[in-house]
Amino acid sequence: MDVTEVLRMNGGDGDYSYSNNSLLQRKVILMTKPIIEDALTNLYCGMNFPKTLVMADLGCSSGPNTLLVASELIKSIHEIRLKLGHDESPEIQFYLNDLPHNDFNTLFLSVSKFQKNLTQLLVHNSSLPPCYFFGVPGSFYTRLFLNKSLHFVHSSYSLMWLSKVPDMENTNKGSIYISTTSPPSVIRAYHEQFQRDFFMFLKCRAEEMVGGGRMVLTILGRRSDDPCSKECCYHWDLLAETLNDMVVEGLIKEEKMDLFNIPQYTPSLKEVSNEVNKEGSFVVDCLEVSEVNWDACTDQNLNLSEDDTQGVNMSKCMRAVAEPLLLSHFGESIMEEVFARYTNVIKNRMSIEDAKLVNVTVSMTRKG
Amino acid sequence: MDVTEVLRMNGGDGDYSYSNNSLLQRKVILMTKPIIEDALTNLYCGMNFPKTLVMADLGCSSGPNTLLVASELIKSIHEIRLKLGHDESPEIQFYLNDLPHNDFNTLFLSVSKFQKNLTQLLVHNSSLPPCYFFGVPGSFYTRLFLNKSLHFVHSSYSLMWLSKVPDMENTNKGSIYISTTSPPSVIRAYHEQFQRDFFMFLKCRAEEMVGGGRMVLTILGRRSDDPCSKECCYHWDLLAETLNDMVVEGLIKEEKMDLFNIPQYTPSLKEVSNEVNKEGSFVVDCLEVSEVNWDACTDQNLNLSEDDTQGVNMSKCMRAVAEPLLLSHFGESIMEEVFARYTNVIKNRMSIEDAKLVNVTVSMTRKG
Repeated sequence: MDVTEVLRMNGGDGDYSYSNNSLLQRKVILMTKPIIEDALTNLYCGMNFPKTLVMADLGCSSGPNTLLVASELIKSIHEIRLKLGHDESPEIQFYLNDLPHNDFNTLFLSVSKFQKNLTQLLVHNSSLPPCYFFGVPGSFYTRLFLNKSLHFVHSSYSLMWLSKVPDMENTNKGSIYISTTSPPSVIRAYHEQFQRDFFMFLKCRAEEMVGGGRMVLTILGRRSDDPCSKECCYHWDLLAETLNDMVVEGLIKEEKMDLFNIPQYTPSLKEVSNEVNKEGSFVVDCLEVSEVNWDACTDQNLNLSEDDTQGVNMSKCMRAVAEPLLLSHFGESIMEEVFARYTNVIKNRMSIEDAKLVNVTVSMTRKG
Repeated sequence: MDVTEVLRMNGGDGDYSYSNNSLLQRKVILMTKPIIEDALTNLYCGMNFPKTLVMADLGCSSGPNTLLVASELIKSIHEIRLKLGHDESPEIQFYLNDLPHNDFNTLFLSVSKFQKNLTQLLVHNSSLPPCYFFGVPGSFYTRLFLNKSLHFVHSSYSLMWLSKVPDMENTNKGSIYISTTSPPSVIRAYHEQFQRDFFMFLKCRAEEMVGGGRMVLTILGRRSDDPCSKECCYHWDLLAETLNDMVVEGLIKEEKMDLFNIPQYTPSLKEVSNEVNKEGSFVVDCLEVSEVNWDACTDQNLNLSEDDTQGVNMSKCMRAVAEPLLLSHFGESIMEEVFARYTNVIKNRMSIEDAKLVNVTVSMTRKG
């Protein structure tokens, strides 16, 4: 599987699109707002109110969350400037990055509307910064920008995706991610792939960022030191359970199942900070863990018939994220069946327990 | 008609796509190569071999011509550097701009392949410059980039497109562009819209370019001072003739035809240089007129049954460019009929005369 060719969120704005099923990711972005504001304040003051701010959102996908990040960052800079009584507004250059198969057409049309609204805002408040938006197709595990050209880098719910499925000595029988039944060599292969990828990410960004530049990353991760911990593996374990049932019923070939593994790794706080220290170009300012309930996939303002809707929405959220990977391996014909079954499994679990996802957020400064 | 919403070349890679019907535009780009190389040499030496070169192709569309421009510019810089014996290769930042409805998804996938080939070249020739590509959705009649951020701007076959159909006192009865039967007020409205748009284009680029930066623009234009001259109006006259026939036959409503005008203006050399002088930020280094036969739409290496193929290809070239405008005004149902008839008209004319398009190329330097 060439991850660069296959990994993407479901595009467009249909029922299973990422655009319509990313409330959970939205909640996580809003949770990290104080950390982002703190980093921006330190950046903006530390650089003595630069005339230009170049920002990048890496793994931006396509949908309302992309513009949420952009508008929160732009608003933050505006508010910081007013609070500190600085007259002149900086120009903001905003880079939106994702893999080349991301739906940039949909993204650019929404950016275009967003810019028109921004222009309207400018009429009423002429001090809002002028903003220019650019799309950047490519893997963030490679160089994407000029040397020393970025002031601020943001990424949310993207860096747990690996550049490839790890090379494994043993098959990961019955599992599609790390699980309690995975052989130690599989767990090691996943961890080493994360180390290589995250190190490369840091190295590329170190070259691209100016000294004093800031970076805030939120990664799907874990509290526990144990990579097989339920907190990070449960949603994949349940998907594996669904697929294994279909193997037993002859709907999926066993050999096909044996060859499917998700190119993801959910690191602990310690694993993240180890890599930052090892790479050496950044100082960690803040390292936090937070959690978000599976029911964050459902709009809490809607008064809906509780558990069922929440299970359906968590399953749709997972489908928006994982369907292109499953589809490229198993083919389109079984997708409906896989997700119908997965929805039932999830509904069932959410009715009896309170499942969560864990997020690791790290804020850091480029040395020098 | 909101031109920003409607104007685009046919996307994808089908039979009527711009991607597969832009040989003529390719030929024009290659014709201007010496002018571009001259501008790049002067830029690169004049700035004493800068470490970074930021370039933009405005109105890049989607297809092989986009990457032709990019690769010609990158190769030129590489060759100039080697010729002048300068050791260090600059980093190149390359912006690809078009309106938000342009097919950026197709463009980004081809850029991604192109970058991989560039990386392969790098292995064998480590001095080829590292290049970073960005998509820029938006109208070039607005600001698109930070202040003083561009070194080199290129645009080919884009600036004859106006930001809107001119506001007209009179209807342009029987015509869809300026023609010998157009009232003087219509011709004036078109000219004034060109002046406003081109002035705005120059003003925006003047703010975005560094002093000493270079810009090479090729615009579909005319030699003659007369805006109704056949050399610039003929292909639209023939399309109007086709549409008028369909009005007579009741296939198109007359009122619908009366309201359709192409948002394009093909300026003379003098009109172009007048606007550059009026705006005042640029010095004209070179101003040239060239021409290209309609048969440039056909690959001259193919040994085909001459006139027929050439007429079909010229009609397909026009369809790839004009179909989205026609479609949004007249609806999809008559498109096949319009272009079947237009093909016959074109075939007929090409068999009896040698029709040409005229190009105005201007190379200029940002003052200061």
